[in-house]
Amino acid sequence: MTRKVKNIGVLTSGGDAPGMNAAIRSVVRSCTYYNLQCFGIHKGYEGLIEGDIRELNARSVRNIINKGGTFLKSARSQEFRTPEGRKKAYDNLVKYGIDGLVVIGGDGSFTGALKLSEEYGFPVVGIPGTIDNDINGTDYTIGYDTALNTVVDAIDKIRDTASSHNRLFLIEVMGRDAGDIALNAGIGAGAEEILIPEEDMGVDRLIESLKRSKKSGKTSSIIVVAEGDKSGKNIFELGEYVEEHLKGYEVRVSVLGHIQRGGAPSCYDRVLASKLGVGAVEALLAGKTEVMIGVVHKNITEVPLRTALEKKKYKHDKLIKVADITSI
Amino acid sequence: MTRKVKNIGVLTSGGDAPGMNAAIRSVVRSCTYYNLQCFGIHKGYEGLIEGDIRELNARSVRNIINKGGTFLKSARSQEFRTPEGRKKAYDNLVKYGIDGLVVIGGDGSFTGALKLSEEYGFPVVGIPGTIDNDINGTDYTIGYDTALNTVVDAIDKIRDTASSHNRLFLIEVMGRDAGDIALNAGIGAGAEEILIPEEDMGVDRLIESLKRSKKSGKTSSIIVVAEGDKSGKNIFELGEYVEEHLKGYEVRVSVLGHIQRGGAPSCYDRVLASKLGVGAVEALLAGKTEVMIGVVHKNITEVPLRTALEKKKYKHDKLIKVADITSI
Amino acid sequence: MTRKVKNIGVLTSGGDAPGMNAAIRSVVRSCTYYNLQCFGIHKGYEGLIEGDIRELNARSVRNIINKGGTFLKSARSQEFRTPEGRKKAYDNLVKYGIDGLVVIGGDGSFTGALKLSEEYGFPVVGIPGTIDNDINGTDYTIGYDTALNTVVDAIDKIRDTASSHNRLFLIEVMGRDAGDIALNAGIGAGAEEILIPEEDMGVDRLIESLKRSKKSGKTSSIIVVAEGDKSGKNIFELGEYVEEHLKGYEVRVSVLGHIQRGGAPSCYDRVLASKLGVGAVEALLAGKTEVMIGVVHKNITEVPLRTALEKKKYKHDKLIKVADITSI
Amino acid sequence: MTRKVKNIGVLTSGGDAPGMNAAIRSVVRSCTYYNLQCFGIHKGYEGLIEGDIRELNARSVRNIINKGGTFLKSARSQEFRTPEGRKKAYDNLVKYGIDGLVVIGGDGSFTGALKLSEEYGFPVVGIPGTIDNDINGTDYTIGYDTALNTVVDAIDKIRDTASSHNRLFLIEVMGRDAGDIALNAGIGAGAEEILIPEEDMGVDRLIESLKRSKKSGKTSSIIVVAEGDKSGKNIFELGEYVEEHLKGYEVRVSVLGHIQRGGAPSCYDRVLASKLGVGAVEALLAGKTEVMIGVVHKNITEVPLRTALEKKKYKHDKLIKVADITSI
Repeated sequence: MTRKVKNIGVLTSGGDAPGMNAAIRSVVRSCTYYNLQCFGIHKGYEGLIEGDIRELNARSVRNIINKGGTFLKSARSQEFRTPEGRKKAYDNLVKYGIDGLVVIGGDGSFTGALKLSEEYGFPVVGIPGTIDNDINGTDYTIGYDTALNTVVDAIDKIRDTASSHNRLFLIEVMGRDAGDIALNAGIGAGAEEILIPEEDMGVDRLIESLKRSKKSGKTSSIIVVAEGDKSGKNIFELGEYVEEHLKGYEVRVSVLGHIQRGGAPSCYDRVLASKLGVGAVEALLAGKTEVMIGVVHKNITEVPLRTALEKKKYKHDKLIKVADITSI
Repeated sequence: MTRKVKNIGVLTSGGDAPGMNAAIRSVVRSCTYYNLQCFGIHKGYEGLIEGDIRELNARSVRNIINKGGTFLKSARSQEFRTPEGRKKAYDNLVKYGIDGLVVIGGDGSFTGALKLSEEYGFPVVGIPGTIDNDINGTDYTIGYDTALNTVVDAIDKIRDTASSHNRLFLIEVMGRDAGDIALNAGIGAGAEEILIPEEDMGVDRLIESLKRSKKSGKTSSIIVVAEGDKSGKNIFELGEYVEEHLKGYEVRVSVLGHIQRGGAPSCYDRVLASKLGVGAVEALLAGKTEVMIGVVHKNITEVPLRTALEKKKYKHDKLIKVADITSI
Repeated sequence: MTRKVKNIGVLTSGGDAPGMNAAIRSVVRSCTYYNLQCFGIHKGYEGLIEGDIRELNARSVRNIINKGGTFLKSARSQEFRTPEGRKKAYDNLVKYGIDGLVVIGGDGSFTGALKLSEEYGFPVVGIPGTIDNDINGTDYTIGYDTALNTVVDAIDKIRDTASSHNRLFLIEVMGRDAGDIALNAGIGAGAEEILIPEEDMGVDRLIESLKRSKKSGKTSSIIVVAEGDKSGKNIFELGEYVEEHLKGYEVRVSVLGHIQRGGAPSCYDRVLASKLGVGAVEALLAGKTEVMIGVVHKNITEVPLRTALEKKKYKHDKLIKVADITSI
Repeated sequence: MTRKVKNIGVLTSGGDAPGMNAAIRSVVRSCTYYNLQCFGIHKGYEGLIEGDIRELNARSVRNIINKGGTFLKSARSQEFRTPEGRKKAYDNLVKYGIDGLVVIGGDGSFTGALKLSEEYGFPVVGIPGTIDNDINGTDYTIGYDTALNTVVDAIDKIRDTASSHNRLFLIEVMGRDAGDIALNAGIGAGAEEILIPEEDMGVDRLIESLKRSKKSGKTSSIIVVAEGDKSGKNIFELGEYVEEHLKGYEVRVSVLGHIQRGGAPSCYDRVLASKLGVGAVEALLAGKTEVMIGVVHKNITEVPLRTALEKKKYKHDKLIKVADITSI
């Protein structure tokens, strides 16, 4: 028999991503729509342990759909990794009468949610919110599309300078394990080369390719490098190596860094977040637990949280070919 | 037996859309990659008739991936609708040795391409480029994602003013037959109401809904109206009607107009255009004709042009529900 | 002898402008700095009459410097134009112990402030906040620089479309009495023609000029038209007239409208607002009244409110010449 | 007696800046207006030595007013520092019949121009184009206003993340010798602390100030650091120092880097560049040489190049006070 949910808690956890506010707003207003109470938990699991919890209504979330970051704040909690921490968290959920929890974040956040469910049978639903698009079982995560636009916009600016000076730029973008941002933003920004974690190009082939590119008439070059690239060098070492082995270019390095996490969310991320928020509340209402609400081919889907935590398999082959062709 | 293509022509036709340049660039560079000659045809079918045709190489399309509009220019051609016009067009294709044509545009452009194929057996491939996302057989058209971001950005600005003055704004967005822009941008911008061509809400229900919305504590309102909405009133008449029947708001009308067609393409549109350009050249190489290269669930697909010209079926139900819930 | 101010009220009035929030923030934090109490008055003079007044501290204005609009809201008040209305307003100032008032707005707002001073000897200081830059005695008003960027960004988008189609666009921008926005944004956007309220070009000279422009090889044209232009036609009539008298162009009309008032303020407007806010509080502290804090050649200056209300004299000659030359 | 100028050359030199294209366009079109020939010299003094020179007409500079960088390209030339290099450069000027040179750039560029004038009596006029605003005798340099907006936009994004996580960010912005960018963008972005080259705050006072700031209720902090700050530490060392001495914040470092040089120029920079281009051509026509065309209180002025090369005196006191007050 389905336990009827009445009071839903919502938190954001892990790195923030543009569109998290739109997701919170959607969870809150879905609660209003279905006559549920909604509680906002501040600072992720840390705030759950501390009892930093406030009731939210439809008006509490006005004017936030277009704001980056998360107004509920986010944090990484060491204490929640201990049974004692989780006990306190659970006690607070009970204290506020919360009987269903929506967790917006990435895999660390989902692991925490699973623990709550396993140890206390507490109903939990996840929403994928991370710019890295590295969650299994969903085509897109909230914030990824915005991050791509931010990266492309930054590289457009750098290209102004690169082509004014016949320079070669190495630009580091986010992506420790996943090359999605590097690959897509690299194609979108017209990068000459793209280094991703999933493939080891080898620095020598990189140099060869850049030489060909120069010979073909290119007077400036952009190389997009994912944080977790396999060159075996950090981006500054890589820059020096390229400068040494490739004559005729001034080499410059730029690390885009934290600007990639912020900014007004794109329309896509706002709509995605709105859909997933509705889906999460409806899943809890339907008695579901231990699921992530994702999107597959435009459709909202429910995926077991354990599946979401599996390593995502990337099929970058076709995109790599598009990158090769269009950077010719 | 497959006729081996050697010289490919490319043109843009109909209304321009952000990302068309990225698509042209991809077609040109795919030709270089596959050792084909590429010819740019200016001003769409009009330029084809006039013989306004120039060879393009990989360097001709540098620094255009981030530019709105189309550097090949676009036009609507009356003459191409006549057999005489198409005869001239065909003669020019022959004169330049072009043996495959890529047409970037919407349904009018595809209709023209089909005629060329039917009358002269000329190989044609279409790429969907229009901000309206109203082409059957592809999840997305080039320019649509950028237009959504442009609309949402404009409404964000208008909301600053709306909420500073307790005003109600009616904002007209593109979409004569399709509510995709209105619905998605409306959700993304947090609109209180969205009027689309596919559904007749009735002005009285609109007024009722706005009254409820005001009672719930909202102090300003945004109503997004697609050009082809079914209210039976133009947007200025609708504004007057609302002002008359809803006390306590100042009503303002804003027609977003042509800004929706321009601007630097989003990363999504640049990548989509890059993929479709490669797909179009590969299709011609494989001896395909009368197909559109589209995208279905991230995969590049070939759709018969006749299918692409069928009326797209919209399934907006779920999105309308998301709009209803999140605007509560 | 100088009356020592202890409690300062701040309100925004008239049309909103980007940077008003930055000005409020600066007033509030200047009060903290000088150990004064600060009261935010909502909805301009209307809220002053209604007593919609709340204490603000340095933390109340966090995260607003980058937001368009005004979080204190703005309104036009009929009642404040009556002696009875102003009596209520004054009574509320006394009730809250407010002994100095900062009014952020345009000439209507300053007129109201002067009345309060004249009738009740109440100390008032004005800060020029309006996108129109039509206030005498200050080089810039808050919001003007942002509006210019918004307009130029919109016209950049429209030009994408114009040059893709060989079209002529008439674009209406704000400015009933002042051509500052039209002239500067017109030059900045590379407009072919600019119609301003201060000069009657005559529609026939416009047509002649456009013909010359076309003959010189231009294939598209942008005409920027201030709301208060002297053509004697509204922009739609003007569009029809041009289409009739100028062959070879499709003519389109775009009214930019309310997007010009919104958006994140530019750096210039944020810094200007920050300076003026400090200046306003320091002026009240120094016992000044009936002055506007403005900026003249980068220096913060005090101007009698009566001078600020005089008609600004425009010297557009040099800029008009620059427009003529650079649009050649 | 004034030598009548007939053929004007224009080049960009040194670091590129947004608005340089608008300045070139204005020089070219001013030449058309005054019936002069105009020659574009590529890659600065290097191209002058190599004879990389092409005639430009009014149509050559279409659609560039809104583009960042410089389409004439820029470079630093070692050879031009030698008498032999300058001899070659002069010979090329003579060869093309150029009898007046407009140099767009910073102090290095002006030094080169002066040499040409001193050694060969060649008429030269400078236009200040650099994002650093470090040229004496002009209120603003081309590109500075755009750079401020780019920096503020980037910090807005970082603040989303900072306030979502209670973090402290150190953000490095351009400015080796001048604190203009750091100070203005710091105020505009609402930074808690700003470190500039002109003032040695001392790291201990920084820590004290941050502690006070935290005590006052701030939960995140932004510190803007100019490249040439006087802390005696690079920004990563500074970050470590702060993390060690200030408990309760996670510290992050972000180096904005080259994005600050690119992007579509702001309206202000476009108009400024347009005015200065006209001024430069008119100065050469009037027989002026060894002058820079600058702007002082909105008026176009001529300043001896030697004065422009003097060290600019900064009067940051008032702005520092505004920063102190508004970050309270």
